[in-house]
Amino acid sequence: MSYWDEALYLPPVLRTLTSLEIDMSVLAAGTVALDSVETPFGKAENILGGSATYITLAARFFSPDIRLIGVIGYDFPEEFVDRLKDAKIDLTGLEVNTSSRTFAWEGKYEYDLNQRDTIATHLNALETFRPQIPEQHRQCNIVCLGNLDPIVQCSVLDQMIDPDFVLCDTMNYWISQAPEKLRETIGRIDCLVVNDSECRQLADEPNLIRAARIIQQMGPKILVIKKGEHGALLFADENVFSVPAYPLENIQDPTGAGDAFMGGLAGFLSSQKEISLDTLKQAVVIGSAVASFTVESFGPDRLFEIDGQAISKRVDAFRELTTIPTPETVRL
Amino acid sequence: MSYWDEALYLPPVLRTLTSLEIDMSVLAAGTVALDSVETPFGKAENILGGSATYITLAARFFSPDIRLIGVIGYDFPEEFVDRLKDAKIDLTGLEVNTSSRTFAWEGKYEYDLNQRDTIATHLNALETFRPQIPEQHRQCNIVCLGNLDPIVQCSVLDQMIDPDFVLCDTMNYWISQAPEKLRETIGRIDCLVVNDSECRQLADEPNLIRAARIIQQMGPKILVIKKGEHGALLFADENVFSVPAYPLENIQDPTGAGDAFMGGLAGFLSSQKEISLDTLKQAVVIGSAVASFTVESFGPDRLFEIDGQAISKRVDAFRELTTIPTPETVRL
Repeated sequence: MSYWDEALYLPPVLRTLTSLEIDMSVLAAGTVALDSVETPFGKAENILGGSATYITLAARFFSPDIRLIGVIGYDFPEEFVDRLKDAKIDLTGLEVNTSSRTFAWEGKYEYDLNQRDTIATHLNALETFRPQIPEQHRQCNIVCLGNLDPIVQCSVLDQMIDPDFVLCDTMNYWISQAPEKLRETIGRIDCLVVNDSECRQLADEPNLIRAARIIQQMGPKILVIKKGEHGALLFADENVFSVPAYPLENIQDPTGAGDAFMGGLAGFLSSQKEISLDTLKQAVVIGSAVASFTVESFGPDRLFEIDGQAISKRVDAFRELTTIPTPETVRL
Repeated sequence: MSYWDEALYLPPVLRTLTSLEIDMSVLAAGTVALDSVETPFGKAENILGGSATYITLAARFFSPDIRLIGVIGYDFPEEFVDRLKDAKIDLTGLEVNTSSRTFAWEGKYEYDLNQRDTIATHLNALETFRPQIPEQHRQCNIVCLGNLDPIVQCSVLDQMIDPDFVLCDTMNYWISQAPEKLRETIGRIDCLVVNDSECRQLADEPNLIRAARIIQQMGPKILVIKKGEHGALLFADENVFSVPAYPLENIQDPTGAGDAFMGGLAGFLSSQKEISLDTLKQAVVIGSAVASFTVESFGPDRLFEIDGQAISKRVDAFRELTTIPTPETVRL
């Protein structure tokens, strides 16, 4: 009998959120970018992008108090600022660097959409970005650290006053280039959200389940592994939960799906009374649902179109997709 | 709103099995092999292997009437025959070629176990194998065509008298080398069971969901895609169902997992009164459970050790792994 036969039956409540004066708030620090993306289905230049953008746009469906921490340059279109403001994202923490251009990313996806090639990364305003969290933002329920230099991620945490729950993303570049600082960051968070190859790389272990256990030993008791078209895995203490990707025949642009996933997850958690195994499972499904919309258009367009009802309907479809029927007669 | 939002809610009963005089029977045609396998965790030479072996050993947990169609050579150990007989596999259809050695396969898995390298394939007795289905085996509820030359698969079907349900596996070799004969076979079956790369290759389409739809147009209304560590997808008419792989930290040898998956799936269906969307979903979970045991040891050893109770317990764990909690308070 394997370890798991035991492990899957642990008590469901992991942790209860401390009540804060500021309720249901999410702060997301990350990139705000001008993306140029090419997929087999089209091409778009200098569109709204960045991890903080996708996280906040996804989180806003669940909370009225979504705060963005990031930087833009002098070339960032006013129109994009207006779109974010119209979406009720609090931009008090969006710094404008008037002497630099905005962080820009150019990428291309091959026909199977599983492989992303970065054509160019222009750090621009991001290069000197040292976020100053506005005083009124320092108390916050949920903190999302989007993919950024772990030094910057740590500096955000240094400025926050006792957040209830901290989620963090990273990428292969920081795992290989800044392993010590990244380990410091990971040691301070509650939940790491990475893709499967990053998980294997960070743990230096090819078996994904063992890799997850190794990362949990590094600090975060909760780990979410994003597997693109194969869905996501949640590791919470000793428990495991699996959610598939929503079966989509038409994927326009995968950019931002992982960030929208984390945003939906974080936003949903901020709307709950406690962070338990059950709310975490629901949050991972919600994140998957929001991510599944994101890829249906170029950039974050779909995130501006959908509403809570659309997300709710898709969550029902996830239930349909995964529910194992109870057998009437199993002869074993 | 995508196609899927509608498609996931179709009526559940696909088809009801016609009652046959012979009840709950499964016939599996495939290879019986001597495998030599190397994984990072060990090495084994000339062990019991082959698709028909794994299929029947997995199916036997659900039906007392499991019939193997295959061929062995003069070098096949009597001990292996005894093991299969002890497992109550009907070997009437196991041909012995006294002038040839047994089909032999040598393979090696790299450290991440996702990549299998075939070192050598010695067809031997398989080269001239043209199965003669024993008279008493020609009426059978469920027919499983393990990976074989599609000519041989068709010849098995030619000899069967109106089976209720035919499942078929194939591999990349036949997709590229015998596309026409394979298409003929696929046109005659009810359910194709292939892995994700074979699915993409057969449909010539990188999007897995679209590829599945294309294959369903070729004939089989039911398609099961095996995705290894990422689980399996069931396509049944317009419906989709997803099951993850069981999270295993210790995988000794992945050989035969796909065949055991099909065997468990077919065996379970043979025990049911009807083949409906619900029984198919359950069958895919059962197949995944049996496959998850298979990889825990070299060769089919674990399949000789486990019993219905162990499978049942693991199916419960799958339920735990995938059940989306019903939210108490979701504020969308």
